[in-house]
This record gives sequence, structure tokens and C-alpha cells, in this order.
Amino acid sequence: MADDFLRLIHLPQAVELLLGSLPDVDDEVETVSSEEAHGRVLARDLVAPEDLPGFERSTMDGYAVRAADTFGAGEGLPAYLEVVGEVLMGRPADMRVVRGQAVRISTGGVMPAGADAVVMVENTELSGNTVELVKGVAPGDNVLRPDEDVARGSLLFEKGLVLGPPQIGALAGLGIDRVDVFRIPVVGVMSTGDEIVPPGQVPGPGQVRDVNSAALVAAVRQAGCEARAYGITGDDFDRLLTTSAQALSDCDAVIISGGSSAGVRDMTAGVLAAMGRPGVLAHGIYLKPGKPTLIAVCDGKPALGFPGNPASALAVFRELMVPLLRKLKGEAPGPGTGVPRKVEALMDRSVSSAAGRLELVPVSLHLEGDGLIASPILGKSNLIGTLARARGQVRVPIGVEGLEQGQSVDVELLE
Amino acid sequence: MADDFLRLIHLPQAVELLLGSLPDVDDEVETVSSEEAHGRVLARDLVAPEDLPGFERSTMDGYAVRAADTFGAGEGLPAYLEVVGEVLMGRPADMRVVRGQAVRISTGGVMPAGADAVVMVENTELSGNTVELVKGVAPGDNVLRPDEDVARGSLLFEKGLVLGPPQIGALAGLGIDRVDVFRIPVVGVMSTGDEIVPPGQVPGPGQVRDVNSAALVAAVRQAGCEARAYGITGDDFDRLLTTSAQALSDCDAVIISGGSSAGVRDMTAGVLAAMGRPGVLAHGIYLKPGKPTLIAVCDGKPALGFPGNPASALAVFRELMVPLLRKLKGEAPGPGTGVPRKVEALMDRSVSSAAGRLELVPVSLHLEGDGLIASPILGKSNLIGTLARARGQVRVPIGVEGLEQGQSVDVELLE
Repeated sequence: MADDFLRLIHLPQAVELLLGSLPDVDDEVETVSSEEAHGRVLARDLVAPEDLPGFERSTMDGYAVRAADTFGAGEGLPAYLEVVGEVLMGRPADMRVVRGQAVRISTGGVMPAGADAVVMVENTELSGNTVELVKGVAPGDNVLRPDEDVARGSLLFEKGLVLGPPQIGALAGLGIDRVDVFRIPVVGVMSTGDEIVPPGQVPGPGQVRDVNSAALVAAVRQAGCEARAYGITGDDFDRLLTTSAQALSDCDAVIISGGSSAGVRDMTAGVLAAMGRPGVLAHGIYLKPGKPTLIAVCDGKPALGFPGNPASALAVFRELMVPLLRKLKGEAPGPGTGVPRKVEALMDRSVSSAAGRLELVPVSLHLEGDGLIASPILGKSNLIGTLARARGQVRVPIGVEGLEQGQSVDVELLE
Repeated sequence: MADDFLRLIHLPQAVELLLGSLPDVDDEVETVSSEEAHGRVLARDLVAPEDLPGFERSTMDGYAVRAADTFGAGEGLPAYLEVVGEVLMGRPADMRVVRGQAVRISTGGVMPAGADAVVMVENTELSGNTVELVKGVAPGDNVLRPDEDVARGSLLFEKGLVLGPPQIGALAGLGIDRVDVFRIPVVGVMSTGDEIVPPGQVPGPGQVRDVNSAALVAAVRQAGCEARAYGITGDDFDRLLTTSAQALSDCDAVIISGGSSAGVRDMTAGVLAAMGRPGVLAHGIYLKPGKPTLIAVCDGKPALGFPGNPASALAVFRELMVPLLRKLKGEAPGPGTGVPRKVEALMDRSVSSAAGRLELVPVSLHLEGDGLIASPILGKSNLIGTLARARGQVRVPIGVEGLEQGQSVDVELLE
């Protein structure tokens, strides 16, 4: 079938179509221990259950004093106070500071009653029971109020936040040992095509091993989701439909990685149309690599027909599937969401680009002097050799004609 | 102890000192199945064991022909060939193309003997047994040679490469089912300080929960390493030494997360000195947050005394520990190694920075119109509130005095 008969759409439209078709994940919540919550997405706003530090606390090593006793103190006119005790770490401060007195205190120690500031040890000199202060302090200096770190009832984290090391630490600090997170989405992956054999099998004449199942399973895991592999179906409509329908029933989304021929793509389109409503929304994307991508939604679940070429399949995964999975995971979009790691490099040759489509040019990278050089990887197909050599890609937006040799480009790192 | 008596070093020097002290990981190799190799680091150069695709292959849907039969063909003067068969996907091509003949072929099909090019289906019109070609082809057009994707014996991946989805796919495509990778490094994490209690315990007066163990365990895992938690030791030299020595014996690196007081730091320094040679190399870094970091190497293993403040501890982890772990994992440094994800934003207020140290200013981020605004998070301490709100950091290098309100900055995303 020639492409003229197919419905092609632009990438942002494809993303929007799919995101718009997704069900609300709000009721897909599970409770996990905070220790296991790393990488999970918060399913409810999290409000601080208590004040932190919970007591008036010194932020310096030094002496807890009444600030009034230090007013005007300086190198030329030191103040002298009587040291009447020491606050031990992790213990209550069982003393009271009255006029003319000071108490030894460490960073993190409880402020003793009567004291309202801490003089840093660097500004003191101890001699017997007397401490000399060469700098004055104001009330509150070097002291943390009981709710100054975190106030009870304040919003700590919003729903949709991914819990990373800082958040896991904060949960521990507040004694929150269990947390509500969204369920991890499951993505079903299968390959189709009469020429495809499992990686463990020696290919016969005209056969090739299944690259995409392994690559896409790894990509799904890297995106923080669970992958389920459904193997290879030959070019048999009924078998593909049965397997796909099973995958769609088991999973939150399905990727059918196509054989390379147009015939298989047509068959996959038929299967996607038969799996549920509304069915196939588009037959391709104005994207290179990745044009022959089938976009379907079947009864509220996304089902995608991916190109057979491995580099194309992974490109479509990154561009289309990653935003989709982010939404399925319940991630709230925020500043920086989806921004890739980038390096600046100079193109070592020109690349032309067809108008009317977004092009992702795979490049290898190497250092030359202090700068990076990006070499476009050209070839007849986006096969394994491209996968092996590409360390980055350069985005050539629609309307830009290509990249010039010597041009400085932002290279998105592929990982 | 005042800082004047301590040895402070710059961050790059600290990284270099630690990296230089590490043992060679070359003999720390294990063999894993390719399916489980995702995220692992390749321990040997990987050479392609066979040619791919391994047969002469069409890269288009169309007709396999003798290019000579199409010379000069065009819209005005089409060439006509007799269609004598079809190559089925995944099957050998059991026919021969002689002068005046063509064979139907799909993308990925085996080229039949006699044919040396493929005419794309878009440039043909079939009528009965005769195909009309409106465009000529040259020998080799739309055909992939047997070793054109990957040539047997060629270097596919170099030692030290992290195996991501593209590499996992390539391994599958080549039928490589097991792969040699470096052992995953183990990092021991412990907290010290008389005021620290486990997260599950209600803190008494003057006590706080252990934030750093949970945060650092998560950070170690995020860095692709294994974390082992050794709990909390109080401010007791012998107990800390016993636990630390055990951790150092079990693990490839140890982090002792300090109590907040100078006394605990001194004790930790003593323990690090007693654990092995050469012992403590530096007592701090010209870095904010993160200055009070103890850097030691004990009998070939790095041992670090981290600041007690959680945001400081995580900053030191990112700046110092992540490069160290990358080397312990056997990762070969390459273009883009260690480059963080970044967004551009405008500072919504000025921040001054002390000369002579690298400063990492934590910021929260929000959208205003089309642009991002970065708000520096200021406060007395790098406590839990800072952790909770910071979504990024702005790097103020040594020698730069600060950031101006309205200045455009690169914000490194914290995750």
C-alpha cells in the first residue's frame, strides 16, 4: 500500500492523541514501605505530620547565650560569660541560662532555657570557667526554631512527584514509613514477521533474530515500568490477534513490533482495528526514523505498531512511548520533564533533511582537542550497526533543511 | 577544632585523589545472561561473531531486478519486465532472475540469484504478469550486502560501555546470550551521632531521625550500585571503628554520615585514620554545601565522612561519590559522562557566593509565561525543607561572586 493512502500525523499530535485517550490513574494506588518507594510516583499530596526539628536547635558549635549579654562585644571589647554546663547531643538541655552565663553546645544540640542565640566557637576563647566572646549575636542567631525546617501541616510533596533520594530521605526524617504510590504500569511487547526468529535460534536463510523484543523490554524497564514479553507471532492474522488481545487484557499498553514489510504492517493495522474502539488513529508519523508507526487506542488502552527496524523502534519508543508511560505512571509534568541530557558538538559533515518531517540524526561522538565532534551515522537502514555506533542524536525540526558541516549542534545523549 | 587546622582541598582534586587510589577493576568480572545485562558495564571488548544480515537483503518493498534491464527507464519511457515469482519472508529465494525478468520482494527479503537491485513498489505498476518501471536503478540500489549491517570480526562495543536498550538489542540480534560484565560495586552506608535515631523510632528530646542512611542508600542504588546499610553508631569511637572496619571489609567503599557536631567529625576522622593506609587525605572540600567532608583511602578502598546535613550529604554524593562509583563500576569515561540534565531559567533574586569555593545553590523551579523561573532556597541549614523543595541547583564556580536577579542560568535538575 503506498503511503498516500495512509493517514500520517505529526509527532506532537500523536503524543496528544495518545495522552488524551488514557484513563485516569487516580484509583491505581498501592501502599509501599518508604524504603521500597525509590523511583515510585507519589499518589497523594504528602503533608508533614510533625514539626522538624521539633525543638529549638543550635545550628553551630559554640555557646548558647542570652544575646543581650553579648551586645557590643568585639575584638577590642570582648564580653565574658561564665560557662555553667554543656548540652549533650541527643539529650534534653537540663539547665537554664541566666544573665552572665553561657552553656557549651554542639551543632544540633537543644537550646537550653533562657538562651536565645549561639555564639560560634570560632569567636570565643575559653579560659577555665570563663568564655571570652569577641563578637556579639542577635536573638535567634545560629538557632533553628522548632518548625523552621518543616512545619506540621505544610505541603511537603505534591501528588505526581517521583520519589528520588532527597524525597526518600525526607520521608525517613519525618518518620513516614509507608507511602501511597501509583501502581507500576505494565507494557506488553511482541514481535511479528515470518522472518523473525528468537535470539537463541540460528537463523535460516532469509531469517533474522528478534532484536526489538529485547531492546524494547530493556527500554520499558529503563522507563520505570514493567515489561512483559509475548514472543514472536508469524505473519498470521488470527495468531497475532489472539496474542495481542491477550497482551492488551494483561497490560496497560501494548507494542507490536512489526516485521519490515508493508504486508505485515497492513496486517498489524487490521489487528489493531479489530482489538477495540476507536482502533487505529494514525498510520504513520512525520518522523525519521519512525515513519511507519501505527497508533491505536483499543478500549482505553494504547496499542502501537512499531517499525521493524531496531533504531527506528527505539526512536519511536523515546519520542512517543516515554511521554505516554510517564502519564500512565501518574507523573505530574513539571519543569524539566522529558529534557534529555545534552552535549554541544560540531558536525563533521553536512546532513540534508526532507522538509515536512522531524528528523533525528544518529551520531557518534568523539573528542578533538577540547571540543566534541558529532559524526552522523548514515546508511541504508536503521539496523544493528546504527544501534551499536550511535551515542547521541541531533534533532532537525520540521522546516529546517538540514545540518551544515562545522555547525554547532546540541546532541541528545542516547542511553 | 577550627577549620584553619584542617586540610581543605578543591573538588576536582578530591575526585582525582580518590580516583587515583582505586584498584583496577579488570579482574572483577562476572558472566550474566544478555537479558539481565541491562545497565551493566561491559568487561571486555565485544567483537561481532557473525555477519549481519548474513544474506543479501532487500531494503524496500518492490521488485528484484537486473539493474541493466532498467537503465534509462523513466516516466516517459518505462521499462517492462516479466514477474516470474515472489520471495517469501523468512524463506530462501528459490528462483533466478534472468534478463527481462523481475521477482516480487518485500523489505527484508532475500535477493534472488541474478538480481542486483530492487525497484521500489512506488515506481512500478503491475498489470497481469508484467511490471512497468518508471524509474531506473543502479546495481546495489535498495540492497544490503551480507556484511553491510555488521561485519564479522568488527569491534561492536568497547569495554567499559554501559549496556542500554540499544546494546541489549544488538546482543539479541547477534545471538549473544551471555556477556562478561563488571561486578556491581557494593557501598556500605552508616550514620553516626548520639542524637540520631532510626526512622521508625519516635525521637526523644534533642533527637532526630536518621535521614542520611535512607537517602544515601537510595542514591547508591540510583547510581547503579548495591547499598548495604550498617545502621547508626552513637558517638563511641570503638563501636564506630568496629562497624566501619566491618563495612570496609564487606564493601568496595564506605560512607560514614556524620553527626552534625565538630566532635563527631573529629571522632570520624580518627576512625578513618585507624582503618587503614594511607588514611585521611583531606578534612574538607572548598564546596558549599559539603565543606566538612572527610576523604580517606584505607588499604585501597575509599572511605568518606559525609556531612550530617542531608542536602549537604546528597550534594557531596553527587559531586564526589558518583564519579568514584562510575570508576568502581568499570565505566569508561566518554563524551557526555556525568553531564546532568539541565534547563535554562531566570533567577528571581540575587545570591552572593563566597570567593574560593564552588557553590551549589539549590533552587525551586516554576513556569512564568513561556520561561522558567529559578528561586534560590535560602535558609539556615541544608535540612529536610531544602531537600523537599529543591528541584535543581545552579553551579557558582570558584571566582564567580554570585548570581544576579534576572540572570539567565543553567539549572541542573536534581533527581
